[in-house]
Formats: sequence, structure tokens, C-alpha cells
Amino acid sequence: MSLSRIRLESLNSKVMSAQEAAALIEDGMVVGSSGFTKAGDSKVVLPALAERAKIEPLKITLITGASLGHGTDGKLAEAGALAKRMPFQVDRILRDKINAGEILYIDQHLSETAELIHNKNIAGVDIAVLEVACIEADGSIVPTTSVGNSVTFAALAKKVILEVNTAVPLEIKGIHDIYQAEDYPRRNVIPIVASENKIGRKTIALDPSKIVGIVMSDIEDSPADIAEPDDKTTAIANHILGFFENEVKLGHLTESLLPLQAGIGKVANAVLTGFKNSNFKNLTMFSEVLQDSTFDLIDAGKMDFASASSITVSKACYDRVFSNLDKYRDKMVLRPQNISNTPGLVRRLGIIAINTAIEFDIYGNVNSTHISGTKIMNGIGGSGDFARNAYLSIFVAQAASKENKISHVLPMVSHVDHTEHDVDILVTDIGLADLRGLAPRERAKKIIENCVHPDYREELQSYFDRACERGGHTPHLLEEAFSWHLRLSETGTMKKN
Amino acid sequence: MSLSRIRLESLNSKVMSAQEAAALIEDGMVVGSSGFTKAGDSKVVLPALAERAKIEPLKITLITGASLGHGTDGKLAEAGALAKRMPFQVDRILRDKINAGEILYIDQHLSETAELIHNKNIAGVDIAVLEVACIEADGSIVPTTSVGNSVTFAALAKKVILEVNTAVPLEIKGIHDIYQAEDYPRRNVIPIVASENKIGRKTIALDPSKIVGIVMSDIEDSPADIAEPDDKTTAIANHILGFFENEVKLGHLTESLLPLQAGIGKVANAVLTGFKNSNFKNLTMFSEVLQDSTFDLIDAGKMDFASASSITVSKACYDRVFSNLDKYRDKMVLRPQNISNTPGLVRRLGIIAINTAIEFDIYGNVNSTHISGTKIMNGIGGSGDFARNAYLSIFVAQAASKENKISHVLPMVSHVDHTEHDVDILVTDIGLADLRGLAPRERAKKIIENCVHPDYREELQSYFDRACERGGHTPHLLEEAFSWHLRLSETGTMKKN
Repeated sequence: MSLSRIRLESLNSKVMSAQEAAALIEDGMVVGSSGFTKAGDSKVVLPALAERAKIEPLKITLITGASLGHGTDGKLAEAGALAKRMPFQVDRILRDKINAGEILYIDQHLSETAELIHNKNIAGVDIAVLEVACIEADGSIVPTTSVGNSVTFAALAKKVILEVNTAVPLEIKGIHDIYQAEDYPRRNVIPIVASENKIGRKTIALDPSKIVGIVMSDIEDSPADIAEPDDKTTAIANHILGFFENEVKLGHLTESLLPLQAGIGKVANAVLTGFKNSNFKNLTMFSEVLQDSTFDLIDAGKMDFASASSITVSKACYDRVFSNLDKYRDKMVLRPQNISNTPGLVRRLGIIAINTAIEFDIYGNVNSTHISGTKIMNGIGGSGDFARNAYLSIFVAQAASKENKISHVLPMVSHVDHTEHDVDILVTDIGLADLRGLAPRERAKKIIENCVHPDYREELQSYFDRACERGGHTPHLLEEAFSWHLRLSETGTMKKN
Repeated sequence: MSLSRIRLESLNSKVMSAQEAAALIEDGMVVGSSGFTKAGDSKVVLPALAERAKIEPLKITLITGASLGHGTDGKLAEAGALAKRMPFQVDRILRDKINAGEILYIDQHLSETAELIHNKNIAGVDIAVLEVACIEADGSIVPTTSVGNSVTFAALAKKVILEVNTAVPLEIKGIHDIYQAEDYPRRNVIPIVASENKIGRKTIALDPSKIVGIVMSDIEDSPADIAEPDDKTTAIANHILGFFENEVKLGHLTESLLPLQAGIGKVANAVLTGFKNSNFKNLTMFSEVLQDSTFDLIDAGKMDFASASSITVSKACYDRVFSNLDKYRDKMVLRPQNISNTPGLVRRLGIIAINTAIEFDIYGNVNSTHISGTKIMNGIGGSGDFARNAYLSIFVAQAASKENKISHVLPMVSHVDHTEHDVDILVTDIGLADLRGLAPRERAKKIIENCVHPDYREELQSYFDRACERGGHTPHLLEEAFSWHLRLSETGTMKKN
């Protein structure tokens, strides 16, 4: 089995155990690892490294595509193996250590990490750990369920460890489109003008002399947690679908809309599910991750093509896709994340971007990352890559949560990830605010009318009215701007008693 | 004189006075007008409209390229002629009325306005007022000192008024590169891979049947106010030049650097002036406005080519450029602002972006637009178009001002235009903070050490230390975050007494 996946004979001598491979990683190294939204991550070497860090002092900088599966980030964090982590994470243990100041985290636009490494704007990668489906006779590698930043790591890391995952069928070859723009100052056009364009190679080039270890594994990706639509997410989805229907009626969009990008999570899932029983057709995606709903729409004949950097699906969907790869082969592509998320392509293709907010304010500024302005949840991910340049930038949140003790529509957000300039449409379960062409005071009026939970509407209106009395283009009462957050921290609720 | 500039004979009957042309603009109309950083604006029709609005009720929505010269925005605002204004302004009278809530202002990324109009995401343009150097026999028009959004206005406005400015030499034809990307979903690649590429036509296409009035004028652009470098701006410029020299030494950049973008103002001027006596050579610009310093660098043999959307220079420089157009013709180009500022080109070319901040905070979030979070100064302009996608994003500010009563380095900015994700380097007269590859707590340390005025260092350090005790990825004390702004408003200084 192993030999059929290592097609460059001279490499057979490099096969070793995960422990042996982990031993090649030295204290202080910058490690670049595959893995994007839990897909295509290191299943055995990084976990072995976490084991090793339990018994000897060892701290690395870990750069990935995005989040890892199998609790690997947590294991590494718990073992004290992480000095610095970028560009994204979703792990509870790691997050706690970041917020405690024990691990340094750089929260980056997902399109930018590879650029920063190429441009030497951040430290170079010492060693890469990449999951692959196979190694070709020319030394090039076939990625698995994500591409992420692996092209960059393979090109620029001094040494490379490969994890050959035999659980991934060899037929996965060909769903990847491996392309990188030239270095500055000779960068050329990226010739993608539609989601379905494939412009590169099927495999990632790799100098075989850099391969210092090959480890076999047969572990599948962590499955995605699929949350069925509930009342709130269905309400949000229906507001968005109703908005799209109206845009079609107005002649602004056709029934194929424009390529869709959707963040991970319940709401995106509910919106995409909503398309199944709609009049929309010939839909396309140009996103960073493909979830169950993408394949449901392909199966329902509603979606023609989907482009992303990873496939993150439930166990059932994983089996469906990988048992029927020939059916999906011409309907999807996985790209490096600095291509899937590159701002120029987002504007060229005219993406409709749907992303999740932790909170937003009366002027439409969005906080995607921080609880009460200080504690990170996950990270900005690709939301900024898409929202800034989208044809339409939509952000969603529930109006209130925790028995309505927390309002997600606020006087002022406690941290800004997306400014008012980059937010066209805000949606909660209460309603949708179309902010296009509105000045700040008009935005506030519409957000208060349409989006805030009724329990908070009166106080939000009062804040805005009193701020307006004091004047300004963007009226605020700085001494009160964070009073809702402070009240929550003092009393356990944002509500006035 | 007039006839030689109106080369389509049938249009001679459309020549009229500014008052007659202004009378064609109706109450409630959306007016799209030429003009970008005071260059190429309407010199006679909009001022005549302001006069008319003094004696009859009249309110329009005015969309331009960017700011207007000759106090026109102020005249319109004072006459009550403006209901809504976008995407940029710098006028004191208009600003006061925006901040009083009397005029609605939409502060937009300058690359986006044309996109929003094309995509019908904002209301269509009823009538355009465009300054031109001449009208060709095919009805197409030659712009003057800016292109701005005029291509979009000419294409999409229902009616067009032209101001033929005979003060602009006819030889200006050929310095413009008129190109627009296709409409969605058929948009193609914008084939610019270097500042000097010219990919379009010399004139703006215009259906002559839409021309409802032609007005002659002979008024030059408002001259730029050139501030000579002072101690602070020179200090900032020297920090930046020293940084560039070091990047060259490290092999990250060559002595040609990468294409430069610089915002308007004293600091940009000081930085560019600093290049004159440096070892840098074969410099290029890919910016939104060309200022005196650009032409000084061309004359000094330091700059090979400069691309922008407008020329905004002093009277002396204006005369120098327009008396020697043949000398500069192959060294510059003016583009539509949705090309000069388009995010995809900024990343493709690898721009070094230098923009001005009103204030920034310990984590590197930048406020470019609002005084104390509420009152707008000018607007975000093109800074977001460039900063987000730049190879290097640099923001500058003086450390303190008004006898050091105001610190421009703060615990938390009162308004966010550029998030920590988009800011690589911060510079004040005190020093430069290189934030690349740093996590928030590291960024704070460096900013406090290198950038803050010594009068405020201790208190800023104390804020950060006490915030860290409470924890978080981005430690803050929400109850104190705006205390410096509040103290300024209460006591006239940010300093503790």
C-alpha cells in the first residue's frame, strides 16, 4: 500500500515513524503545516510532537492554512509546544492560552499569510509538515482535502516532512488547481475569470532533496459538526433569500446570482439549504471552504460549480463525495488559499459574501473576533478578504442570545474587524438592514428599526438620539459607548434593571 | 477658440452660459461631477448651481471623484444645495454641515463608487457635469487634470453637461488611459502588470445625444498648498527612508523599491522629497494623486514613471508640467479611480503604501477620518484601497500636537478605518514601529517604545500593563479605553493634571 503511494523509489528510505519525524522538529523552529478548516491536516506528526513536548522543553511557531482537526491545536497548546500561532484557530484550549497571554497569536487575513512569507515580511519556514495523498515519480505531491498554504510551505521550507494518508483515495488527484503568482516585481495576471477556471497543475512541485521524513497514516479528517437549521438561523436565511429574490425582481441580479462565498457555520448552512427549494439555479461558489450544503446543492441540480481551498464535511457527506469522486470531479476545485481568497479575484468575479459577526453596531461596524473587545474567539479568517471586495457584503448574527441577556446589536462594537465601509447588508433573526447608499445616521435608523432585538430597541434608540443631540457625522457618546459590555460584565446581562 | 475644442459640429448649438446649464439640474437629482483632489473639477456650472440654490429651494445628491477645488463644496453647502455627498470631501463649511447632521455624507473607498453605480447598488446618476479639454469629432471627450469617476458618469448618466476648459492645453490628450472592466458576470482581467502599462483609449466615450449643455471656461485648478518639510515631517520621513535602506540591505527590496503610493499632505511630500538625495533610483508610483514631489523626482532622474487618477500641484509646478508636457508625457498616466485604486492591482504590483492617520492605538488600529470618534475630518479616501492590499502598509502621524495637549497614539482609537490586520508599519516623529509578524501584545510593546510622545509614554504603558493583568488576546480596559479623549473634551488636554 505504501509503495503505491510513494512513486519516487529513492524516497522509500525516508519512511519513518511519526515519533521519528517529530524528532526532526527542533526547539524554536517555524513549522508550516497543511490543514484548513480541519481538512487535510497533519494527523500523526504534530500529535507526536505534542507528546514529545510533554517530556522535553520545546516551543515552535506554527503556521497553517487555517484551523486543525482532531484537537491537535489543543494538544500542542496543552503540552506547551506553541510559542506563536498563525493565521487562524478554533480550539478552546489554544484560545484560552492565547487569551491568558501564554501563546502569541497572529490573526491574519487568510489570503495574506503566503504573501507575507514569500515577501519575507515574516520569518521563513524551517520545516513543513504536509499531508498528501501520494508522492509522484517527479517528487511532486498530491494534496488531500485542502490546499491551504501548502504550496508556499513546499516551495520555501528548508525541510519537508510528508504524511501520506492512505485513507484518502488516490482518485482525489485532479480536484486541486495548483497555481502561484510570480514573485515581485514580476507578478503577472492571475487568469481566473470564472469559478470553474483551472489554471495550474494537479500536483504541488517539491524538491525531493528537501524531504527529510515520510510517515504513513490512515486517519480521516475530523468531521464537520452539522447543525440543523433552527428558528433563528431559518429566519436569517429567509431574510437573505427574500432579499435575493427582490434583487432578481429589480433586475440587479439573475437567478444564478453571482458566485457565493459563505463562512462556516449554522447560518451559512441554513442559507445554502434554503436555495434547494428556491427558484435560483445554476449557482456557483467561489469560497474558502465547501461544506455539506454545497454538495447538497450540487446533488439537487442547483449548483454548477464550487471553488474553495478545502472540503470540510460530515462523515456521511465525506463518504458520499469520496465514493463518487467522478461525479463531483468536474464540479469543484480546491485552490491555494492565496488564490481562493485573493481580493482581486473577489472583485473580478463579483462575489456575494455571507459571513458571521459576533456583534455589530448602529453604524454597521462589525466585530468578528473578540468577546468584549479583549478575548479572541477564532479569528478573522477569510471574512475580510471577501467582505472588502465583494459585489455584496452581508454579515449575519442572532439579534440576542443567552436568554436575550446579550444583544449582538450595540451602540459601538468593542473591536472592529470590518468597518462600515465594507458592510452592505446586516441580518439578524429580527430582520434585514440594506445599508447600500446610506450615510451613518441613516444606517443607524435602519439597523435599529430592522435588526435589534425588541428588548433592546428602546435603549439603542435612546443612545442614538442622545448622541445625535451632541452632533457629528457618526454620533457617539464615548463615555457610554461600551456601557452595554460593561453592564454585562458587572451584572451578567446587557439589560438595564 | 471654442470651435477648435468642439470638433463635433452638431454640438455647437449646445453651447450656453453656466447659469443656463445649472438650470438643467433639477431639485432631487443625483449629479455626478468630475473632480479629484481639486483637479479637473467643475469651475463654473456647480458654482452657478450654488448661486441658484441661494434663491430657490434645490437639493441634490452630489457624487464626485474626490474633493473639489475653488471652495465649490463650501458654496454648495452654504447655499443648502446638498442633500447627500459622496465619496470624499475636504471642505470646512461642508464638513461642519455634515457634522451638524444637515448634509448626509457617504465616506467611501475611492475605488468603490464607480463599482456601486455600475452594479446598481446605489442610485443611478441623473446628470453629469464633466470638465473636458475638448470634444472630439466622434463625441468622445478628453478629460483634464483628473479622470476620477468621469468614465462611469459619462457612460451611465442620463444627461451630460460639459465644461470645456480652454486653460488646459490640448496637448493633455494622451496622458489619460481610459479603461473600464466589463460588467458582471462577464468581467475579465485588467491587464496592467506595471505602473507604465497603458491599456485603454485616450478619450472617454460619450453618446453625443446625451449632451444637453456645453459651457466654456478658462479657470485653472485650485493650486495645491505646498507645506515645506518641518522638523516633525522630516523626522518621520527620515525614519521611513532609514527603514527602506535597511530593507534593501537585507535583500528584501532593491533600490527601486516597489511602486509607491502616498496620500496627500506634508508627510508624503517630505518622504518623497527625501528620495531626491538618496541612493534609491528608478522609482515608480502607482498612486491616486501626483503632487509636486512626483515631478521633482522625475526631474531629478529618480522616478521613471508615475500612475494616478489626478495631478494636484502648486501653481509653479502646474505651469512647469503643462509647458513641458512632451517631457512628462511618457512618464505619467492618469487613470479612472476604480483602476488607479483597484485592490487587485495594488496586490499584483506590490505597492508600498504611505498614508496619514489622525490617531492610532497600541495595537495598530488606525483612525483616518474622525475627531473623537464622532466628527468627520475628510474621509477614508483611497487609504483603504491601498493599505489592505499593499506589499507594505505604512501609516504616519505626529506623536503629539497642539503643544502636546493631544497624543495621536492612544489606548484605543475612537473610530477604526484600518484594522490591525492592515497595518504593517507605524511612524511618528519619535520613531518607527515595525509590526510585521507581531502578535497584539508585541505590537503594543513596540508602539509604546517607539512611537508615543514621551509625555504620554508612562500613562500608555500603565494602561497596557493594567489591561494585561485582566487578560485577553488584545487586552483593554473598556471603562478607560476612551478616557484620553474624554479628558481632552473636559479639560482641553489629554494630559493628566
